[in-house]
Amino acid sequence: MSDGIGKRTELAKELIVREIWNRGAKQGDRLPSCGTLSKKLNLGRATVFRAVKKLQEEGILLARDRVGVFIADPKTPGRVSYQIGLLIGNMNSSPFNNLMSIYLQNHCNDKGCRCLMFHPAHVLHQTALEDSLSAHLGVRQQIERGELHGLLTQLSLSEENRDYLEKHRIPYCFAGGLSPNPAHLSVVISLPEVTRMGSRRLSLAGCRNPSMLAPEAEQFSEAAELFKKMTGGTCVPYQNLSDLGSLAQKILRLPPKKRPDGFLIPDDLVAQLFYSALIRQNGSGYLPHAVILAPAEQLLPFPGESEVIEFSVMELARRAVGLLLENIRNYSPERQEIILPLKVGKNVL
Amino acid sequence: MSDGIGKRTELAKELIVREIWNRGAKQGDRLPSCGTLSKKLNLGRATVFRAVKKLQEEGILLARDRVGVFIADPKTPGRVSYQIGLLIGNMNSSPFNNLMSIYLQNHCNDKGCRCLMFHPAHVLHQTALEDSLSAHLGVRQQIERGELHGLLTQLSLSEENRDYLEKHRIPYCFAGGLSPNPAHLSVVISLPEVTRMGSRRLSLAGCRNPSMLAPEAEQFSEAAELFKKMTGGTCVPYQNLSDLGSLAQKILRLPPKKRPDGFLIPDDLVAQLFYSALIRQNGSGYLPHAVILAPAEQLLPFPGESEVIEFSVMELARRAVGLLLENIRNYSPERQEIILPLKVGKNVL
Repeated sequence: MSDGIGKRTELAKELIVREIWNRGAKQGDRLPSCGTLSKKLNLGRATVFRAVKKLQEEGILLARDRVGVFIADPKTPGRVSYQIGLLIGNMNSSPFNNLMSIYLQNHCNDKGCRCLMFHPAHVLHQTALEDSLSAHLGVRQQIERGELHGLLTQLSLSEENRDYLEKHRIPYCFAGGLSPNPAHLSVVISLPEVTRMGSRRLSLAGCRNPSMLAPEAEQFSEAAELFKKMTGGTCVPYQNLSDLGSLAQKILRLPPKKRPDGFLIPDDLVAQLFYSALIRQNGSGYLPHAVILAPAEQLLPFPGESEVIEFSVMELARRAVGLLLENIRNYSPERQEIILPLKVGKNVL
Repeated sequence: MSDGIGKRTELAKELIVREIWNRGAKQGDRLPSCGTLSKKLNLGRATVFRAVKKLQEEGILLARDRVGVFIADPKTPGRVSYQIGLLIGNMNSSPFNNLMSIYLQNHCNDKGCRCLMFHPAHVLHQTALEDSLSAHLGVRQQIERGELHGLLTQLSLSEENRDYLEKHRIPYCFAGGLSPNPAHLSVVISLPEVTRMGSRRLSLAGCRNPSMLAPEAEQFSEAAELFKKMTGGTCVPYQNLSDLGSLAQKILRLPPKKRPDGFLIPDDLVAQLFYSALIRQNGSGYLPHAVILAPAEQLLPFPGESEVIEFSVMELARRAVGLLLENIRNYSPERQEIILPLKVGKNVL
């Protein structure tokens, strides 16, 4: 067998595996006939036949005489249906980001895709996460070689980068973070919904003078308005995580009656930092009720009395990978946004 | 050009890229002549010539007339020197594990290797992490196809699995965790060193009745002995993370004078859980001095007064990938262990 034929057989094997994945086939499912596959994959019948034989030798397919060819092992690690890039966030910024990266890769693997992490060396320690695509040269190189079928991103992309991806008809999905995100595809948490749920929980807990602890960013000004309308409370803004210590100090200097009697904090690490600072500066004398947005799979232990607005990172990753694969198969330029469901739970850790 | 020739050229390209990585070549370095490469790579001179031309077209090499061929871009994403598997730990178990997974992948990429994460769906929610290799079928499949050059593992491997890897002469490196680990290659944190450093810090902080909070495992019995010898204190064992709440309760029931006046805790998440439980049950009335082993890159905010024994996850990953690559290039069956340096810092978060 010459190398030339070998190469076409390899391609046929790859396309058959992709077909198996695309159909969501399970162990024991019957493979379509070589004739059907040949038409569908636009490959010679002999090539398809050789590829099927090879996949039998590798234990991925199983032939039963006079019955047909069946799928022996739909999990075919190393065989790849699509190659998907993962643009990860700043590695150290939050345990949530890291957990998310791993779940996204896990779900890509589960769907038979190879996930290539584009390492964040270039964006590390950058505060501006814009233009992250050009900082990840690897992404552009792979796209221009036609070796990347889709992109998952934990970072917000600049308009220029979004245009670039759209020009190349590469579907990309923003995974995680608070809504809205202008990405082609996105799975997000609704900030208004978090604000509404949080406001209600604080009211139910009897808080009369609650505050929302949120970053000083345009995205949050609307949420702050909503919070004020629902609870009568105000938004306490911070610029960096390092501000939280002095913010705690400032609040502790207020007369006890003027201090907020509850906090809505849409970031679990911020909640940890802020309450730890309160305790280090003042013991447990002032630990108001907290409502915290946090990933269900990795609840950080919390020293104060708290409720959690939970979302599932596993579900987030599952939906993001699903949405992306759908668009790889049938590209549509329309924006699609999935709002992740939330639920209220007690932080029992 | 027939497919057959194309395939050999592809192989030559791959081997040249691997050669560039192996030599740690930088931008502007001169490529050895086609004759030298042909001998070294055991490939025809014409094939090497074609591969070099191709790599020039792709912008990886740069020819200067009458001078030679130079390396234009030693970072060649998508081109791969080695394919390395990553066997990750239980995803939810600790933020440290996740950070580690990401740094390991990052360093593999930095060294021009493709890192394939073997997803832990099979080991998730398993308490026994033994036999993890057979649970990750993908690893065996890739090894048997000759497509895996080395393995990074965050899990301890059973003797059977270690034998299997050694039989196939696949170098594997255990990254992270407390020493000793029986892996072929390992980068670990020395538990005796942590115990010595922690005991000294507790003494310097004036603790007279300190305790060590550690899992009930054989690995820790020697450390407990050492801790007792150095401080006169005892080891408080726990079996699961869910024990920590009742452990806090038990200690709070002791008369204040009988309670430990300091803790050595070789796990940052355990420290968080334990101190959060103390605060929730008793406010800030009893928050003894804590010495905590924690990753420098991701210090969790801590409510009590604490010192940190720091290690660098970045350094851990860098050394593990370095050790593995060295052994891929020159396989040696001898065990090699690197002890990661530690330093003492104040937890300033």
